[in-house]
Amino acid sequence: MTAEIICVGTELLLGDIVNGNAKFLARQLALLGIPHYYQVVVGDNRDRIKQAIAIAIDRGSKILIFTGGLGPTPDDLTCETIADFFGVPLVEEREVLADIAQKYASRGSKMNPSNRKQALIPQGASVLPNPAGTAPGIIWQKSAELTILTFPGVPSEMHRMWRETAVPYLKSKGWGKEMIYSRTLKFWGIGESALVEKIPPSILDMSNPTVAPYAGKGEVKLRISAKASSAETAGHLISPVEELLRQIGGLNCYGADDETLAEVVAQMLLAAGETLSVAESCTGGGLGSMLTTVAGSSNYFQGGIISYDNQVKVDQLGVNPAELALSGAVSDVVAQQMAVGVQKLMGTTWGLSITGIAGPGGGTESKPVGLVYVGLAAADGVQSFEHRFGSQQDRDMIRHRSACSALDHLRRQLSTREETKTRFVDL
Amino acid sequence: MTAEIICVGTELLLGDIVNGNAKFLARQLALLGIPHYYQVVVGDNRDRIKQAIAIAIDRGSKILIFTGGLGPTPDDLTCETIADFFGVPLVEEREVLADIAQKYASRGSKMNPSNRKQALIPQGASVLPNPAGTAPGIIWQKSAELTILTFPGVPSEMHRMWRETAVPYLKSKGWGKEMIYSRTLKFWGIGESALVEKIPPSILDMSNPTVAPYAGKGEVKLRISAKASSAETAGHLISPVEELLRQIGGLNCYGADDETLAEVVAQMLLAAGETLSVAESCTGGGLGSMLTTVAGSSNYFQGGIISYDNQVKVDQLGVNPAELALSGAVSDVVAQQMAVGVQKLMGTTWGLSITGIAGPGGGTESKPVGLVYVGLAAADGVQSFEHRFGSQQDRDMIRHRSACSALDHLRRQLSTREETKTRFVDL
Repeated sequence: MTAEIICVGTELLLGDIVNGNAKFLARQLALLGIPHYYQVVVGDNRDRIKQAIAIAIDRGSKILIFTGGLGPTPDDLTCETIADFFGVPLVEEREVLADIAQKYASRGSKMNPSNRKQALIPQGASVLPNPAGTAPGIIWQKSAELTILTFPGVPSEMHRMWRETAVPYLKSKGWGKEMIYSRTLKFWGIGESALVEKIPPSILDMSNPTVAPYAGKGEVKLRISAKASSAETAGHLISPVEELLRQIGGLNCYGADDETLAEVVAQMLLAAGETLSVAESCTGGGLGSMLTTVAGSSNYFQGGIISYDNQVKVDQLGVNPAELALSGAVSDVVAQQMAVGVQKLMGTTWGLSITGIAGPGGGTESKPVGLVYVGLAAADGVQSFEHRFGSQQDRDMIRHRSACSALDHLRRQLSTREETKTRFVDL
Repeated sequence: MTAEIICVGTELLLGDIVNGNAKFLARQLALLGIPHYYQVVVGDNRDRIKQAIAIAIDRGSKILIFTGGLGPTPDDLTCETIADFFGVPLVEEREVLADIAQKYASRGSKMNPSNRKQALIPQGASVLPNPAGTAPGIIWQKSAELTILTFPGVPSEMHRMWRETAVPYLKSKGWGKEMIYSRTLKFWGIGESALVEKIPPSILDMSNPTVAPYAGKGEVKLRISAKASSAETAGHLISPVEELLRQIGGLNCYGADDETLAEVVAQMLLAAGETLSVAESCTGGGLGSMLTTVAGSSNYFQGGIISYDNQVKVDQLGVNPAELALSGAVSDVVAQQMAVGVQKLMGTTWGLSITGIAGPGGGTESKPVGLVYVGLAAADGVQSFEHRFGSQQDRDMIRHRSACSALDHLRRQLSTREETKTRFVDL
């Protein structure tokens, strides 16, 4: 049962928007284990939509999935063109019409005459309800060999309709029996090739589960994907590989799936009942912003000083002006004094600081763009860490990697301390 | 001369990545005025690549643009499949081979035997050089009716090859004589429908230039697009419409094209020789981070206080504890005291503050999620501004809109003050 994705919309041909719907559906089909070999984009044009249907059927695609062209305007042609292709009339669905009218009423406005069009579906097709919008889709099993599904182009509406109606329908037909389940391990502080080289070839060459590396923005990911008939079976396939990869990655592995460095640090600080403050120079608030993406971060994050100007480093953080003049703002010693300064000022368990050269200007031979120091003040002392992200990196990337690296250093401290504690208890 | 985009890559069929290459090429073709009616995605599979070529030719596409499948591995099949389809042998290009070897040598590594494959191109085709990578593309004018271009899937390589070689080639052929030039005006502080309603229908219905509204993340854009044979002609078409739309938008229009609120504020502060500091609660550093995306921001941005905890508001910013207890942290009065506090502490011309409820928790009936106050301290006094972004908005969006709104309030102050000055001089 192979599927084909047909996206309708002139805005895709004009390059106004990226085709996120095709990516979403492709991923969903892969997870369901339904193969698909073709994606097609056509504009809002009757002849070309019909041609796409003919080609798809001709090459043996059995499930045609359409997105876009279900709106109320004259250039929304998907549904009527499908009916026309198969030579059946459109019929008005009363329940759909009532639903559309009710949705307009709830927004305090009246249905336009043009919205009636959205209640028309090809004779013989079923309505694919759209709880989030006015344009319903259809599910039309034309024959044992051909099923048609249509979705509006609005991603949020399409996603919900897919999950709530299309997936149960496809499963009820016995398609998508074997689904792909995956788990993504996330790593910081190690490069892609260095990590991959540590993994035995036998693991990288497995076929179920598979292990695939991805890298970007300073982070490396390993995705373990298993094809199985249930989540439980998939878990049995994935778990031993995950365990091995976590061992190989060691401290570099900071989490899995949607976990972020800020969330991992949050959990550790909450568990320990400890607090954090930050002192930021080149990131300008980016570290604090990253920490406070986590809801409830006020339970461990006190605040910080954005010491962009050197005077703020001296006045607010107590950095020694002589040291600042001697070593420069981008130095080990200033990073340390910033971290200790904010830790004392805000009375927190930890103080975390960043000072560096984000570029594009301001670099010298001895202190190039991309040179960044992270300071970490704890109860028992202060450390600093030097990073050289490379002067070819752009400003945004250097700032992003600086903030992530700062969080990562704190994470490592919190992790190794916990390991030490555990080891101590073991003895 | 219609084009067709054929993207090759199993990763697209698996939904691992979004098809940004199709969007890029679609936009570029639109800008060049070369129509294209179809985009196709196929996997790394000989038969299906051949089928896509046959269909494209059959439906009259004259320029076939391929992306992906040019790498050194066995599943990179695009180039050899194209040669196979047209029944011509592959020939090794010595210069390409030397270039690949040199690129490996400059990285301090040796060329793999598999890389030889990347120097093979169909007999009769020309090399489309890849200055940024090892996989060159081809330009192959098979006949007056058929031209084939191939690009690697790596976006940065593809973009450069497109701009440096493909565009001059297409123009030299006389295609893309009339290009689309556009100018995008950017607005903050007004909704899409409110803005569009102010624009005369005669402007919205024009065909050259066209005016199209876009909205997202609290911002509204109006794109003016003109089809013309030169940038100068396009400028004559666009300018009067731009002038009119700027008048209609008034103070809500903050800039054009790639300009950001942070850059506009930067230019105004630099011109006035004035400085800024920030005090942030719910944004946690996001406003400072936004300001420091601009290189050279140290010339006007002094720094800030991230007063996430109330104690920091009192200790560092001098917020009155009694007022804080009475009005709550999310209030007009606290926003004002935060702004004045940081302005004094850092000795800056302006102090800009944010305090609000970003959610998802923490909202009450009188102070719902999405309620945000911005404080703005100037030399001659302090103001505050209330925003209600709506409790259905997510945490990230509320924080983003808060930081942008704060910048926007400062921009309006700087703009109106300049207008007042100008008016005064006029009298």
